[in-house]
Parts: sequence; structure tokens; C-alpha cells
Amino acid sequence: MNQSETRWLIPDGYIPPESSGQLESHESVCVLNLNKEEVTVMINVYFEDRDPLFGMEAVVPGQRTKHIRTAGLVSNGERIPSGVPYAMEVTASLPIFVQYSRLDSTQAENALMSVMAYPVHK
Amino acid sequence: MNQSETRWLIPDGYIPPESSGQLESHESVCVLNLNKEEVTVMINVYFEDRDPLFGMEAVVPGQRTKHIRTAGLVSNGERIPSGVPYAMEVTASLPIFVQYSRLDSTQAENALMSVMAYPVHK
Amino acid sequence: MNQSETRWLIPDGYIPPESSGQLESHESVCVLNLNKEEVTVMINVYFEDRDPLFGMEAVVPGQRTKHIRTAGLVSNGERIPSGVPYAMEVTASLPIFVQYSRLDSTQAENALMSVMAYPVHK
Amino acid sequence: MNQSETRWLIPDGYIPPESSGQLESHESVCVLNLNKEEVTVMINVYFEDRDPLFGMEAVVPGQRTKHIRTAGLVSNGERIPSGVPYAMEVTASLPIFVQYSRLDSTQAENALMSVMAYPVHK
Repeated sequence: MNQSETRWLIPDGYIPPESSGQLESHESVCVLNLNKEEVTVMINVYFEDRDPLFGMEAVVPGQRTKHIRTAGLVSNGERIPSGVPYAMEVTASLPIFVQYSRLDSTQAENALMSVMAYPVHK
Repeated sequence: MNQSETRWLIPDGYIPPESSGQLESHESVCVLNLNKEEVTVMINVYFEDRDPLFGMEAVVPGQRTKHIRTAGLVSNGERIPSGVPYAMEVTASLPIFVQYSRLDSTQAENALMSVMAYPVHK
Repeated sequence: MNQSETRWLIPDGYIPPESSGQLESHESVCVLNLNKEEVTVMINVYFEDRDPLFGMEAVVPGQRTKHIRTAGLVSNGERIPSGVPYAMEVTASLPIFVQYSRLDSTQAENALMSVMAYPVHK
Repeated sequence: MNQSETRWLIPDGYIPPESSGQLESHESVCVLNLNKEEVTVMINVYFEDRDPLFGMEAVVPGQRTKHIRTAGLVSNGERIPSGVPYAMEVTASLPIFVQYSRLDSTQAENALMSVMAYPVHK
């Protein structure tokens, strides 16, 4: 049964290190919170060759969306480095919906990709 | 069980405020109605920092598709503003299929993204 | 239960009418047939303002893939017109896997989008 | 029930034969391994008009991601040819999550596409 879920996976994370033109390269973890209550979102980050960064936090008010920029996330003073392949595990205090999108403007004109994050049913 | 559904979610909505070149920046909520009867589609819009806009309406005849441009939707005289992150909840009077696509032509050449909307099973 | 299926939906179909640069604008319905036997794929096409085109046919041998160009499909001598929004229903004589991709080269450089088609469980 | 799975399908594989500009055309099979143990990933490749290539192998350590470049995969000394439509079947020794992305830089500026691979439940 598909439903809003408290855990979503995004295997392909990457913050493009360069931008050109009008728009800045970035990724967004787009959260939709249809609950009446505020939701706390925790993002764990997995790398290819180092230990994970756990517990990057964001808050989404009730009946609101938040398009979370990954470059702004912080865990113990550490940020996700750009130019490095990584993956994300998104958990939430209440069921939410999650989509992941990336804008890459490395090469003058922009390129876009988007996927619905992969929900895990308990 | 995957099936046609009456409720679909799209967490990453965004109407690019600028266009250049031959094609205009836009988003489409692509509905496929395989029923024999006409379907009424209602779209609720959620924002980051203001109350939702409820009840934007579109009609799709039986055995037809409709690629609904989000910029054309209206709720009590209000439209979805461009340049603002938002999210959509799509509900329908009968089961349908929904895909979401965006063409961004901000930077001269076009960029495309598409996802199957996230179906919610009752 | 997710499995190979005999019926897949693609609500956002569109054959870009123009191409420029090295690559030609096109869509592909990418079928993977893991069965030992050949599969017959039937594609029905739904439009916004006219009756559907039924029964466009393609054959995929056992243990083969086929990336079917939509512009090459024929039903009673009729083809899918370019520049027109439409939707597809893909059915197969045996369970298959289906992904849909579009390359748009209208504006000099190319733009890509791709979705896993939406499987319908019986 | 959606979960991490040991089998994922990607019907639309294609290694663009050309690159231009700053970035190289490539595909990535992005694996997230949340297990504590190392996972062995086996990729089978299906073509339009020749027999499959079985058993291309990659290893992903526990609690790590790996964004596997398809051009680097080898089976009995054979690689996946560029410029040829193909499809992939990804199996793993333990449950994983898989996303597939392609960067095409054939025409000077880059184009991106991404899909969550299609999980098969046993």
C-alpha cells in the first residue's frame, strides 16, 4: 500500500561544484507535510569512502512544503562537500512525501533531473 | 497493488519565472483518464510560508489525456505565483494516472524533468 | 508486490516537432523482456481532443530489450502526430519492464527526461 | 511493501558515444548499501540484437554508496559498447537501493536524466 511514509531513500546525491549563467547549481530535497503538526526531518548522508554524516535536521510546518537545499544542511559543524558522490536517507517524525531534484548549471546552460524518493514501508 | 488512483502527490512544484529561446518555461500535470466517464480533477497547492490554495479545478473527458499547465489554474481568482517553491495534491472524482513534467528555458536552452506523481492507495 | 507486469501507463507523451544540432528529438518506450519467449507489445494512444489510436504493435525477442521509437509506430496507417500532447497504454503478451525517455533537441542543445512507466497490477 | 531489495531493473541504458565541454557523458548505477556488511552487486546487460552479457561485478562496502560508472564494468574481458541501446538487471547479495542517472554532453551543454530503478519483490 502506497502512503505517506516516515523513511525515504535517495541513492544519487551530488552537489555540482560549479555554476555558470543565471542559475546556481543545487539539489533540493522537496518535502510535503500534509499533517497539521510540524515535522522534524533528519537526513543521514552516506559516502563512497568515508563514514556517514548522521542527523542533519530540517523542520517543515504543518500543511507546508519545504524544498531543502542540501548545501545548507549541517551536522556537527560539517556540511556535505560538493563534487562528491553521496546518498541520502531521509526520516521524519511523521509521515511525509519526498521528491529529489537537481539543477546542474556547470556548463553554461542548465540541466535538470528529478525522481520521487524511494519510500520504505515499515 | 498498483492501480489507477484518485489521489496523487507532487512535492516539487515550481513555475520558472523566465523564458528565453523558442519554448516557454512551464509545468504540466499530465492526467490520463481511462474511464468512459469524464473526471473532475482538483488540485491543492501547498507553499513554504503561506496557507494552501485549495480546489483548483480541471476536467478530463473519458478516454482522454490532459496535460494541465499549472500557470493556468485558478482558485478564487488566485493563480500559482511563479518563482516560488510549492507542492501539489491532485485528487480526482474517478481513478486516474498522473505524471508531472517541467520545462525550464530560463537559460536560453531548455532543461526537462519528469516524474510519475506519487499515488496514494486508500 | 512489484513484479514484471503486462500493463504499463505513460501519461506524458509528446514528440517534439523540431530538432537541431547533432541529435534528433525523439521518445523511446524502452521494453525489457526477460522471458525466454518473444513478447508482442501493443500500444494504445490517448489524445486531448480526439478518439484514441489502438493497437500499435512491436515485437521484442526473448532475453532482449527494445527501445521503441514512438514516431515509428503505426495503427491502420496512422502515426502519432508530433507537437501534440498524448498518453500511452502499453500492454504485453507476457510480463515485461518499461521505462519511458524523451530527448528534446528543439533549442540547439539537448534536454533529457526519463521515468519508469507506471505498472498496473492485476 | 516497499523495501530494500536484491533485484532492480533499468530498461533504458545507453552510453553516449560523444562528449564535449567540461563534463564527460556517462551513466551511473547508484547503489546505497545500508547493511553493515559489504555487498556484491552483479549486473546483467541485455541488448536489442545479441546475447546478454552476464555477471559484471562491483563491490559496495557496508554503510556506503557507490555510483558505478557503466563504462567501467567488465564481463569476461568485454565492456558495454557505447552508442548502443541496452538494459540492465542489477542483483545483489543483500538488499540495497538503486537509482540510475545519465549525463549526456554530446551537444556542448549537458543534459541529465534520472530514475529510481524498478525493484522486484520476491
